[in-house]
Amino acid sequence: MHENPKRINIMEANTIYKGLEGVTVSETKVGFVDGEAGRLVYRGYNIEDLTEHSSYEEVAYLLINGHLPNAKEYQDFTQVLRKSSELSKEVVDLIWTHSESHPTSLLRTAVSLLGANDRRADHALDKDQKDMGMELVGKIPAIVSSIRRAKDGGKYVSPSPELSMAGNMLYQSTGKKPDKTSERIMDVCLMLHADHGSNASTFSSLVTISTLSDIYSALTSAIGTLKGPLHGGANEMALKLIMKIGKPENVEKVIGDMLQKKEKIMGFGHRVYKVYDPRAKILKGFAREVTQKNGKELLFQTAQKVEDTMIMKLGSKGIFPNVDFYSGMVYDSLGFHPDIFTAIFAASRASGWVARSLEYVSDNKLFRPRSSYIGERGPKEYIPIGKRN
Amino acid sequence: MHENPKRINIMEANTIYKGLEGVTVSETKVGFVDGEAGRLVYRGYNIEDLTEHSSYEEVAYLLINGHLPNAKEYQDFTQVLRKSSELSKEVVDLIWTHSESHPTSLLRTAVSLLGANDRRADHALDKDQKDMGMELVGKIPAIVSSIRRAKDGGKYVSPSPELSMAGNMLYQSTGKKPDKTSERIMDVCLMLHADHGSNASTFSSLVTISTLSDIYSALTSAIGTLKGPLHGGANEMALKLIMKIGKPENVEKVIGDMLQKKEKIMGFGHRVYKVYDPRAKILKGFAREVTQKNGKELLFQTAQKVEDTMIMKLGSKGIFPNVDFYSGMVYDSLGFHPDIFTAIFAASRASGWVARSLEYVSDNKLFRPRSSYIGERGPKEYIPIGKRN
Repeated sequence: MHENPKRINIMEANTIYKGLEGVTVSETKVGFVDGEAGRLVYRGYNIEDLTEHSSYEEVAYLLINGHLPNAKEYQDFTQVLRKSSELSKEVVDLIWTHSESHPTSLLRTAVSLLGANDRRADHALDKDQKDMGMELVGKIPAIVSSIRRAKDGGKYVSPSPELSMAGNMLYQSTGKKPDKTSERIMDVCLMLHADHGSNASTFSSLVTISTLSDIYSALTSAIGTLKGPLHGGANEMALKLIMKIGKPENVEKVIGDMLQKKEKIMGFGHRVYKVYDPRAKILKGFAREVTQKNGKELLFQTAQKVEDTMIMKLGSKGIFPNVDFYSGMVYDSLGFHPDIFTAIFAASRASGWVARSLEYVSDNKLFRPRSSYIGERGPKEYIPIGKRN
Repeated sequence: MHENPKRINIMEANTIYKGLEGVTVSETKVGFVDGEAGRLVYRGYNIEDLTEHSSYEEVAYLLINGHLPNAKEYQDFTQVLRKSSELSKEVVDLIWTHSESHPTSLLRTAVSLLGANDRRADHALDKDQKDMGMELVGKIPAIVSSIRRAKDGGKYVSPSPELSMAGNMLYQSTGKKPDKTSERIMDVCLMLHADHGSNASTFSSLVTISTLSDIYSALTSAIGTLKGPLHGGANEMALKLIMKIGKPENVEKVIGDMLQKKEKIMGFGHRVYKVYDPRAKILKGFAREVTQKNGKELLFQTAQKVEDTMIMKLGSKGIFPNVDFYSGMVYDSLGFHPDIFTAIFAASRASGWVARSLEYVSDNKLFRPRSSYIGERGPKEYIPIGKRN
């Protein structure tokens, strides 16, 4: 015990690290958020370079395996993804008989069901974990797209072997082959959201896998955690605010009133970034393009005015738009309904969850924190039910 | 930031609190494990008093609500439990069409499915969370029993209104009304395992609900976390060891050899208890009774000899049997197959998970720890796929 005096301090002081704010729980080589410099790095690569030159298939491989795939690795991996994006009859039936369900709850259930059907998951061995994880990276986007398709009243669409993962997400969502611009924007969205530090959903996947549970369990936990509005709901709320404001002329008054009432403006500010969120910078250009293309210019113009107003008022305090401010608008323009935004988030974060879960378990330590008992010490006397008040 | 100097120390030092060993993450009034004194306390009551006088219904109510129920509260709660222990056709179909699945994976999926079917869970409000949680306390044991029933090739059994929860667990498992002794032992097992500090599964339920996700998500995470052999598998391994040893005469040699090879003897020692685990003490008496009743005396006698041998060799170092050493034997004597032991654990721990999740979210703080990036800083140059090795 003597080699780590800080730990003893904590145990003695019995400080409560609620929410674990500021507490470092793991080391990682997967991704890095440099809040001061406004950099997001995956395995050493800048997010700007990846979104400009790469694809989600490459990025998912990079996050999980630590290097960009060579031609052979790329071919093998995309084959796994393509095969995984074809859903079984049972999963299709689950989705279509539960099209009224909350998309995130339904996704969580589908992933858990896949785990119950996979005999490799019964006693998860290292090699199997990675295989199952890579398959889930292909499976989850197909489930999300199919949930949208079912909600829209369409029939299940098998993935097309000609399309990228991003292309198939749109194709399986709508039954229509997407144009190149939409496919590209979807691809960028998937890349941008693939990994982002030690957030609650990622952390929950580490806690789950630390018992040597299987990767389906880890991702089921992550999806259930992402479902909470404190985590996955910000882009929906940002979009709704912009829609409510309606047009640029209304911005000054609405934002001014909200700030005076100290209401939170969703899509602004970030715990880590003290400068402009690099993801928002990338997404903003695509948001302009896709809203124009789909006749929703007014939405973008209103958002731009909100951004200008906010930066004028709060930019000096380090408050800038974050990725959620523009992603909702992009998904809306691609035809996704707000209630499925969180599930789309899961579709791209799946690769980060898998990468970090496998990394954690490769040098595993069971999570077993302490809680501080502040209740009655007793022993209280047991009083029979007839004599209780 | 200045009011908490210890937190700043951690952030500066960037110590890695892997597994969060020794780090206190929450305050609780639900339960207390006093390792020095060998006491387990639920809301101020000693576990010995509860298992002697109370029932699992009362204990579950106590953990969740903070006090033992009066007559009216007891009636209302048992009505909720009874109604919940009748499974829907959909859940029954899920179980019977997946009777080959790992019981814990199947339980995780069934709980997730219940959440996807419950519109209250879409946007979980405080009051609904508690109602849904109390229903889950009734639902999960019925699911576990039905999984056993399906694996045994029987048909779904509706719960009997005359029986206790423990009684119905056995009835829904076997289709036969249990004798009073078996019902009582099952009841004690449920009470003994209902809550036990801030273990990995309980912690994962807190992480999930801290995003304001719903209680189904929290328990789905907990079940997936419990599935890992580092958490839920010890009683199965202890039972297998005792069975392998076979008879008291073999104990000395087998245990001696294992200790010499520094192999871990499952069911002995505990992170918190430095004296005899109070749950093991209670369970041991019942283990003797139930093994005798079911013609498995040899199992108990072998276990007793293992205990004597271990205490002689290691008792002075604070190594004593823990609850897992005797629970496997009890479940075996009640006719449960080892592969379902972890799911039975979940059936009783459900009340602790619900109690602690509701408690945490009532004074919530989102879990968002830090990870330390030790990978390449880059920026690495993006090299096109054709030029990669």
